[in-house]
Amino acid sequence: MLALQRRNSTVQPLLAIIQAGEDDRLLEISKKIAGRIGLNITQICLEKGCSEDEIVEEVLKLNEDPGVHGVYLHLPPASLTSRVLNTLKPEKDVDGISDLNMGRLVRGDISKGFVPPVASAVLALLEKHDGPLEGKAVLMVGGEGPFGVALQCLIERSGMVAFKSHCSSKNLQSQVMQADAVVLLGAEIVDFPSTWVKPGAAVIRCTPTLESDEHAAALGLGSLTAAYRTQNVVHSCGRWLQEQQYQPWHLRSLKLQPLTPVPSDIEISRAQTPKSVDQLAEEVGLLPEELEAYGRSKAKVRLSLLDRLHEQPDGKYVLVAGITPTPLGEGKSTVTIGLVQALTAHLKLNSFACLRQPSQGPTFGVKGGAAGGGYAQVIPMEEFNLHLTGDIHAITASNNLVAAAIDARMLHEATQSDKGLYNRLVPSVNGVRQFSPIQISRLRRLGINKTDPASLTPQEVSTFVRLDLDPSKITWQRVVDTNDRFLRKITVGQASTEKGQIRETGFDIAVASEIMAILALADGLEDMKRRLARMVVGTSRCGQPVTAEDLGVSGALAVLMKDAIKPTLMQTLEGTPVFVHAGPFANIAHGNSSVLADKLALKLVGRDGFVVTEAGFGADIGMEKFFNIKCRASGLRPDAVVLVATVRALKMHGGGPNVSAGAPLPREYIDENLSLVAGGCRSNLRKQIQIAHLFGVPVVVALNVFKTDTQAEIDLVCQIAKECGASDAVPCHHWAQGGRGSLDLARAVNEAASRPGNFQFLYDIEMPITEKIRTIAQKVYGADDIELSPEAKDKIDYYNKQGYGSLPICMAKTHLSLSHMPDKKGVPTGFVLPIREVRASVGAGFIYPLVGTMSTMPGLPTRPCFYDIDLDPVTEEITGLF
Amino acid sequence: MLALQRRNSTVQPLLAIIQAGEDDRLLEISKKIAGRIGLNITQICLEKGCSEDEIVEEVLKLNEDPGVHGVYLHLPPASLTSRVLNTLKPEKDVDGISDLNMGRLVRGDISKGFVPPVASAVLALLEKHDGPLEGKAVLMVGGEGPFGVALQCLIERSGMVAFKSHCSSKNLQSQVMQADAVVLLGAEIVDFPSTWVKPGAAVIRCTPTLESDEHAAALGLGSLTAAYRTQNVVHSCGRWLQEQQYQPWHLRSLKLQPLTPVPSDIEISRAQTPKSVDQLAEEVGLLPEELEAYGRSKAKVRLSLLDRLHEQPDGKYVLVAGITPTPLGEGKSTVTIGLVQALTAHLKLNSFACLRQPSQGPTFGVKGGAAGGGYAQVIPMEEFNLHLTGDIHAITASNNLVAAAIDARMLHEATQSDKGLYNRLVPSVNGVRQFSPIQISRLRRLGINKTDPASLTPQEVSTFVRLDLDPSKITWQRVVDTNDRFLRKITVGQASTEKGQIRETGFDIAVASEIMAILALADGLEDMKRRLARMVVGTSRCGQPVTAEDLGVSGALAVLMKDAIKPTLMQTLEGTPVFVHAGPFANIAHGNSSVLADKLALKLVGRDGFVVTEAGFGADIGMEKFFNIKCRASGLRPDAVVLVATVRALKMHGGGPNVSAGAPLPREYIDENLSLVAGGCRSNLRKQIQIAHLFGVPVVVALNVFKTDTQAEIDLVCQIAKECGASDAVPCHHWAQGGRGSLDLARAVNEAASRPGNFQFLYDIEMPITEKIRTIAQKVYGADDIELSPEAKDKIDYYNKQGYGSLPICMAKTHLSLSHMPDKKGVPTGFVLPIREVRASVGAGFIYPLVGTMSTMPGLPTRPCFYDIDLDPVTEEITGLF
Repeated sequence: MLALQRRNSTVQPLLAIIQAGEDDRLLEISKKIAGRIGLNITQICLEKGCSEDEIVEEVLKLNEDPGVHGVYLHLPPASLTSRVLNTLKPEKDVDGISDLNMGRLVRGDISKGFVPPVASAVLALLEKHDGPLEGKAVLMVGGEGPFGVALQCLIERSGMVAFKSHCSSKNLQSQVMQADAVVLLGAEIVDFPSTWVKPGAAVIRCTPTLESDEHAAALGLGSLTAAYRTQNVVHSCGRWLQEQQYQPWHLRSLKLQPLTPVPSDIEISRAQTPKSVDQLAEEVGLLPEELEAYGRSKAKVRLSLLDRLHEQPDGKYVLVAGITPTPLGEGKSTVTIGLVQALTAHLKLNSFACLRQPSQGPTFGVKGGAAGGGYAQVIPMEEFNLHLTGDIHAITASNNLVAAAIDARMLHEATQSDKGLYNRLVPSVNGVRQFSPIQISRLRRLGINKTDPASLTPQEVSTFVRLDLDPSKITWQRVVDTNDRFLRKITVGQASTEKGQIRETGFDIAVASEIMAILALADGLEDMKRRLARMVVGTSRCGQPVTAEDLGVSGALAVLMKDAIKPTLMQTLEGTPVFVHAGPFANIAHGNSSVLADKLALKLVGRDGFVVTEAGFGADIGMEKFFNIKCRASGLRPDAVVLVATVRALKMHGGGPNVSAGAPLPREYIDENLSLVAGGCRSNLRKQIQIAHLFGVPVVVALNVFKTDTQAEIDLVCQIAKECGASDAVPCHHWAQGGRGSLDLARAVNEAASRPGNFQFLYDIEMPITEKIRTIAQKVYGADDIELSPEAKDKIDYYNKQGYGSLPICMAKTHLSLSHMPDKKGVPTGFVLPIREVRASVGAGFIYPLVGTMSTMPGLPTRPCFYDIDLDPVTEEITGLF
Repeated sequence: MLALQRRNSTVQPLLAIIQAGEDDRLLEISKKIAGRIGLNITQICLEKGCSEDEIVEEVLKLNEDPGVHGVYLHLPPASLTSRVLNTLKPEKDVDGISDLNMGRLVRGDISKGFVPPVASAVLALLEKHDGPLEGKAVLMVGGEGPFGVALQCLIERSGMVAFKSHCSSKNLQSQVMQADAVVLLGAEIVDFPSTWVKPGAAVIRCTPTLESDEHAAALGLGSLTAAYRTQNVVHSCGRWLQEQQYQPWHLRSLKLQPLTPVPSDIEISRAQTPKSVDQLAEEVGLLPEELEAYGRSKAKVRLSLLDRLHEQPDGKYVLVAGITPTPLGEGKSTVTIGLVQALTAHLKLNSFACLRQPSQGPTFGVKGGAAGGGYAQVIPMEEFNLHLTGDIHAITASNNLVAAAIDARMLHEATQSDKGLYNRLVPSVNGVRQFSPIQISRLRRLGINKTDPASLTPQEVSTFVRLDLDPSKITWQRVVDTNDRFLRKITVGQASTEKGQIRETGFDIAVASEIMAILALADGLEDMKRRLARMVVGTSRCGQPVTAEDLGVSGALAVLMKDAIKPTLMQTLEGTPVFVHAGPFANIAHGNSSVLADKLALKLVGRDGFVVTEAGFGADIGMEKFFNIKCRASGLRPDAVVLVATVRALKMHGGGPNVSAGAPLPREYIDENLSLVAGGCRSNLRKQIQIAHLFGVPVVVALNVFKTDTQAEIDLVCQIAKECGASDAVPCHHWAQGGRGSLDLARAVNEAASRPGNFQFLYDIEMPITEKIRTIAQKVYGADDIELSPEAKDKIDYYNKQGYGSLPICMAKTHLSLSHMPDKKGVPTGFVLPIREVRASVGAGFIYPLVGTMSTMPGLPTRPCFYDIDLDPVTEEITGLF
């Protein structure tokens, strides 16, 4: 008890008693004893003759109450029906009367169950009695029920010999005379002359009233029983506390039998049966109450986990980045998934992959899905690629609510007087007129410290009701999660009902919404809400930023996003855990999965486990933003970087011909060509390693092997990579082999991440915006300098004036070159980086300079992926998803 | 066994055996015996020394396999760990060795568990032996484990006396000599002279090899054990079959203690703890595998239920409709919910409410949510009103994918040659060129019966690749689930990348999408897919309809909608079940919840249960469409109509002043005014009753009582309603009292629905379109005639030509009057109904004539609901949702 309290001073063991009618003597004893050792008690007094349903309802409530550690059903035997007994959670059944606990006792494993307190009490009385237990003959009279069975098991397990009789047995006298102890069970009053009893033998009565026995027992059985029940409650509380602690994993990996040739992604995914997500969650130490299942194979995980494991040290934090890719992509996702499959399914080290949720746009457009590929995938891949748990839909709904609020507000301001607006915005409801909390916030920002709507001056009313948005300076766009190129630039408000308030605007793909970037960077509900409130949607005619809170919509946004903030748990093909959460567009945002998923995963994997997270684009963009933006926001520090390279991309950087999607690969990329490979290694690969070293983080090069790669090419890459400073460089065969193909990578990462870290940011956050941009351009991209357009300069001045000067920088640059020129491969030099424009995502918390034109809405090709996608209406199998 | 097979000839009991190594003699016996009675066996042969994980993996697979009725773990004792034993589903544990089954046996309730076959075998041998069982003394030697306990329980329950000994006991001889039967348990070979054994006493050996005993037992214990195991498998299979049958409900209702004054909806919702959805599902006879949970309080239900309960007769089908409402609405949803609360929580009759999923637009706009109100609500109301299970988001994504495909296709056709298009649409992949199934379908429709892409003539290629959509005749709009009035009319394609292909179009609210109407009318996945494929998105320049299948997108739509087709299970405040599914916009679609939810619910409630479903708008619109469109599509026949009226609306129809949202109610509506009430009853109420009678369905009038209604007013309504032909008319107090307030309604509905039905459609489906419209206008609305605009006439001709002539009619008319003039209350007469335009939803399957201008995109007011909506980031409680 004391030990318990020391461990967690805020938790006190609590016994709940369900009773029918008033307290009886037994309850009084129970309460007295419980009180003596500081147990808390709560009593639920039902009426005598209450129904089964009423009892079940109370039991269910107590089941759900985490503060209740034990439930004592002090009810007439007739009320203890099978349904009542088995509704009670076995872990709270401190009387050990549920079928499961009875079975555990019979099998002799009570590590999870409870010994019925009466049985413990009887045993204690037997033990207290003279002489050794071993061989003692105990006569049990009456009591055929489960309690008799339990007691007999315990008596026999203590080395005594149990034999049974009935009160009406004609042999009773001879049996009593042989017994070293007599236990009277059952409801009947059994009486026999005390002369029958062997001298020194104990007689213990377990009658329903459980009064202390005058014949032999010293301490009343009732008191003893109450004491043992109390002990069970303390045990239960201890188990509960134990369960709240970090749990080592007991992960059962799924077997993989890779086929050759490798089948399609969806065939591989479908051939594997995922574990149920509840089971996966239990294996990685999540509690059932921390899980919100969405179907059978995915679940949202509650953020309360962070509180529960607050004191648990984080695991190791590994970033997967890549060299500058070809337009075909070099497989960062598959490397990430292959790596965790190897770490956990093969090396038995805990790991979590943290991935971005893919947009549905490309799934139906050109690219296809993003669940990995081959034998390194997240399954079921169709659920990963489609609606998942609805987070992107929630973002779309939130983003577009802001947009609707902007245009509607402009219309209402254009068509109403100050007074009319004020009367509608602050209406009298049942004669009372008051500001909503969101309006109070706006008043504070405007410097109006009043709370009575009647007290505002006409000038203050006008300031309050008019956002006075400048239609030409609205930066907020609508979004859809569809590749809909015709929405890139549109004119809205052309219906006559909008009274001529037309304006040009556009739609972005949903993942480009600032709300997505906020979801990825928020570290909790409160932080997300704050960020949503301060999103700037445009500028007033007098040059002031107008926020979502000014529109009155930020509370509604938080409500729309309240479930999206919880990461989604899924699994790899080998049954290892994956978090899927957020997927900000790498073009104009930071392109990394969420801070929260990483934080949850770092707690779950434990000190020696690994969280492998992925950064979009090449290391010059994705990794730089991961370090300077995401790690700055989260406070997390990376232990190692995995840099993904392919022979194909290296040949391109070494001077190989153009690679483009749709066109056949030139011969150079199919035949062995060591000099192109070496060229690529000594240019782009070396530079990307150096970039990681700028931040003080060790690099492991992962060569994602294609079947056309020759051994000489593979060896050459690994050799040069190490010469260039990589901690290690290894070929990976996860696509064809799953985790087994990434064992070398897993070992190399384990090794690299175990060295002491030396992480540092590239720039001080308080540096002027221009200097921060210049630092990135010169140190990361290798530019000679930057050149700001006049608009960019004006914007920087404006942001400085508005107090956004100390936000980090999120460069919007092509990923196809270290420079701003997509066709300059290898390591371009001698260029000046042009900054065309500078924008800000104030809610997300970064400034994003535009280097060239970044598309925020992909298009559909002539033959989109959807031509092949189909559903068998009978088997419900999806075909053609990849 | 035979009885089993008769009941379900396709199901054969199947025993799965997990073994380590080859078959041994015991297995051979088992297989022989199983074979003899026609039991199927499947063997999973693991290697000797296999790991716990491997065993668990196999057990989990067998757990999930519905074809396996029993699992025999024929493994060395060391492999039967606690984890292995308790991973096995107790309902498949035919050896009765899991803790739960052992506990059941000890408690003496094996209705769900299994007696271990060896124990049954021993008991059978004891029974076979001479003499009565009663009082027989059975000596058990060895075997302290759970099996010994189980056997002892069974022996004692048969009236025998069990006593135990050890093989090393010094009393063994005297004990053997006293025994009427000796059972040798445990691993040691116990041997003693046969002279010890009392003449006629049985000796039964349960050694691990379980060989038949020469001493006494006639039949080998091994064979007997195998036979009992087989019997357990047959039992298990029988239980499984039983479980597949319709299950009577065991519904635990939630207690309600209504407060006065009635708190806000969200406060009432939050004060009640919903049952977990798994539990609710179990209570109403759903199987766990038919459920896909979405968090704790809602779940999707699989359509496989319809197959399982195929032979179960449907329950009674009740429609809730209303008289012509005021703009404030008269409470159809609350009446619906109050009615099921009364039926099920109070009258203990099974019932399901089937409701529409509300759009999020109004939730954040003007109206607020739609989960009912007061003490008649669906809970948790915030989940009902927000994303729910994502169905509307899926519709938005699907609808907008079609839109993106349309514009992208027009662009590609405008900028490419026939050859270029053909090469892209039917590309060569790894040297092979073929049509996708969706393209084959298009070719068939074009009359081109070829499958080899090389064989098409240039003319055929051109016909195939060019949809040749007329930009001015595209009927497909984009959608958002936001009240975004500025999207009502827009111009798209203004970015330079779209090469000047600009056109005017617009967005509708998501629930106005034809895909929503399809979801509501589809009767399965296959039907939904067919409907999606035949949706017409516009017309080609030569006047041919262009479908979603022509765009190649219909398979992808089915994939996007595959989860949306499953209804969502929730519950009322009193814990009774609710399906939420689909919510087609009543303005331009049929405004009824889904056919599938109704069908599932009708099976679940059982023959004497009730499904209460709701029709949007007044009975002249919602009910008419329910009968003529929904019932026609579903084949279901209604048993009764509940017609909701309020004193407020009746006074309006009786000549009371204007009622409008936002303005205070005139005095006439607050003070008693019997003449206005009588006027409303004798006009609109009477007419709406007559409309229902046109369809041959009895009507119960439900007067939704407001606190300003006087007893005289209430009595008057009920009296006149009955005079007008209502089967009954009762006041309802569900808003203030929950189900208890709707008891009279529940009784009246039970009475009305029990009369034999006489349902008939209003019009024959093969009547000409114009005649169908005229029939509705005259018989339902009371118009003198209809007047078609020239455009409407042309459209009707076009639809006839296209073969859409035999679709039902879905009138798009104001709900505020029986006529097309919203301000004409009561029963307008002497008017001609103008048909401005006629459109078709070919996928959904109806023609919709437009009577006046119908808005398909609501707007936001100056102070939308969202001003008050907020989320407490610590408690996660939502405020201000209503």
